[in-house]
Amino acid sequence: MTAAPSTTLVADVLAGKPSAIARLISRAESGADEAAEALAEIHRHTGKAHIVGITGVPGSGKSTLIAQLCRKIREGGRTVAVSAVDPTSPFSGGSILGDRVRMSDLNADPGVFIRSMATRGALGGLSRATMPSVEIFDAAGFDVVIIETVGVGQDEVDVVRSAHTTVVVSAPGLGDDIQAIKAGVLEIADIHVVSKADKPDANRTISELKGMLTIGLQLSGKMDWTVPVIGTSAVSGEGIDELEETIDRHMARMRETGELEARRRRMAEWRVLKSAEDILRDEFTRDREGRIAAIAEQVARLNLAPEEGARQLLAEINRETER
Amino acid sequence: MTAAPSTTLVADVLAGKPSAIARLISRAESGADEAAEALAEIHRHTGKAHIVGITGVPGSGKSTLIAQLCRKIREGGRTVAVSAVDPTSPFSGGSILGDRVRMSDLNADPGVFIRSMATRGALGGLSRATMPSVEIFDAAGFDVVIIETVGVGQDEVDVVRSAHTTVVVSAPGLGDDIQAIKAGVLEIADIHVVSKADKPDANRTISELKGMLTIGLQLSGKMDWTVPVIGTSAVSGEGIDELEETIDRHMARMRETGELEARRRRMAEWRVLKSAEDILRDEFTRDREGRIAAIAEQVARLNLAPEEGARQLLAEINRETER
Repeated sequence: MTAAPSTTLVADVLAGKPSAIARLISRAESGADEAAEALAEIHRHTGKAHIVGITGVPGSGKSTLIAQLCRKIREGGRTVAVSAVDPTSPFSGGSILGDRVRMSDLNADPGVFIRSMATRGALGGLSRATMPSVEIFDAAGFDVVIIETVGVGQDEVDVVRSAHTTVVVSAPGLGDDIQAIKAGVLEIADIHVVSKADKPDANRTISELKGMLTIGLQLSGKMDWTVPVIGTSAVSGEGIDELEETIDRHMARMRETGELEARRRRMAEWRVLKSAEDILRDEFTRDREGRIAAIAEQVARLNLAPEEGARQLLAEINRETER
Repeated sequence: MTAAPSTTLVADVLAGKPSAIARLISRAESGADEAAEALAEIHRHTGKAHIVGITGVPGSGKSTLIAQLCRKIREGGRTVAVSAVDPTSPFSGGSILGDRVRMSDLNADPGVFIRSMATRGALGGLSRATMPSVEIFDAAGFDVVIIETVGVGQDEVDVVRSAHTTVVVSAPGLGDDIQAIKAGVLEIADIHVVSKADKPDANRTISELKGMLTIGLQLSGKMDWTVPVIGTSAVSGEGIDELEETIDRHMARMRETGELEARRRRMAEWRVLKSAEDILRDEFTRDREGRIAAIAEQVARLNLAPEEGARQLLAEINRETER
């Protein structure tokens, strides 16, 4: 695809070799220093994929929907990669929800790449789990890159918003408690999906959603875009064609209106911010015995306020960076 | 309480005047520059309160439980403040869950202070909503400070972990989907509460929780502490005495074992990190038209990787700080 850069690994990623893609993602996940250099090189080759964030609570049927969407995208001849973020326990580091995409037929297809990302616990952001894989998939030439998250919590919302197109999946008949948790993500949607449209109360859920969208704010950047509500069914296959078309139409509208450039800048800003936060977190985990601990000690002893400590920390990180 | 510091507002906060407490929290929430100075002064007067984090999904009955616990604490002659974090929509900035503590009798009691914090949307952390209020309540002399969060998402978990004692509230009979979402927070508990213990399936929930605790990791710092599971009832008042005693016993054990010092350092580290992240976020919101936008532009144009941009940003913030 592109001329071989500094390392063979990066060249292999750019050539779309699955083993190289998997290896670089693993290195990025483990925070290896050599990964940073490779990722900086990778970034130059991104910007071609359509990044789609898909979010929904457990039980919303989003994994099944993603599997169907992947099949549909493949039928049209395009390639697709999925980066699925599993919530993990802050202590065990293990996967809790087990809500991964099950799609054995797709696993055998070289035009599909599925990666379940583990998050790193309390001080590792979800962004760190997804950002590198999305960049790697994009650079490796996948046409569509899907980010799957559980739609609860601020971090989770942030991650799914760092996409060109955000899809929020709801299911009919989930309890009020679930609906309340989900309420916070309704407004981030460019497209709403009501899964399990074959269920009797699906139409009510679709009507309710449309009602909420009419009442609430409908921001979708600066372009004119009426947020559609699409019913889908894993049983009948209903709505999957419409979903794919709508995702494509959203991208086409963004291109026409200049919204795409605005989102790209917003995404870039978000990535820079998250990356800066990652650098800070690394200081905390790497240097626990050292000067960070000394700053924290001063804060714990009430000699220094947290913000004063934070400014000292930023200054010290910078001195190290400039060395 | 303490000699008057630089400003009258801080002196009034330290004297426990409710209007001053409310005003300083509002200023801190709005990110006013003069608030930073006051908060730095406030920090020196903290370290006396017992900070208790209480988390549970909507419907778990945690707000009712907190009201009961506040009454119990007041009966014993101690004062208590509550900092309740409501999830907000990233766009509207309004409260979504409406899950605030309803306790009109307590509102009339000067020994109780309740504050519902709004979070700031996508780029504001939950920590920023709670940290200043907790510090202000502590410095104002409240014996117990309760932080209430909805127990979903990484940010929410982080916030509730930034307490001396963490209580996780579960309710019998919530759906499997809710239980799955909640699974991520089970392990952060120092104390488990099963609310609505008068319900028929409460005992099953208590047994299930005890079973999960036996199987899973039981980390509670370096001290020997078997995580208790307490059934409580808003109807009969059952379990509230035991909960208050257990919270106090947890603090006593932390003091005896040196765990308290370890937690204080952990809390200080967390506050420094979160404060540093807030400084970064401010750069993004304040200087959107300026050099941050220029860095993001370079990242969007693929001339600069996000991490390179982040390092430039940290260096620039630092130069400004040193000016």
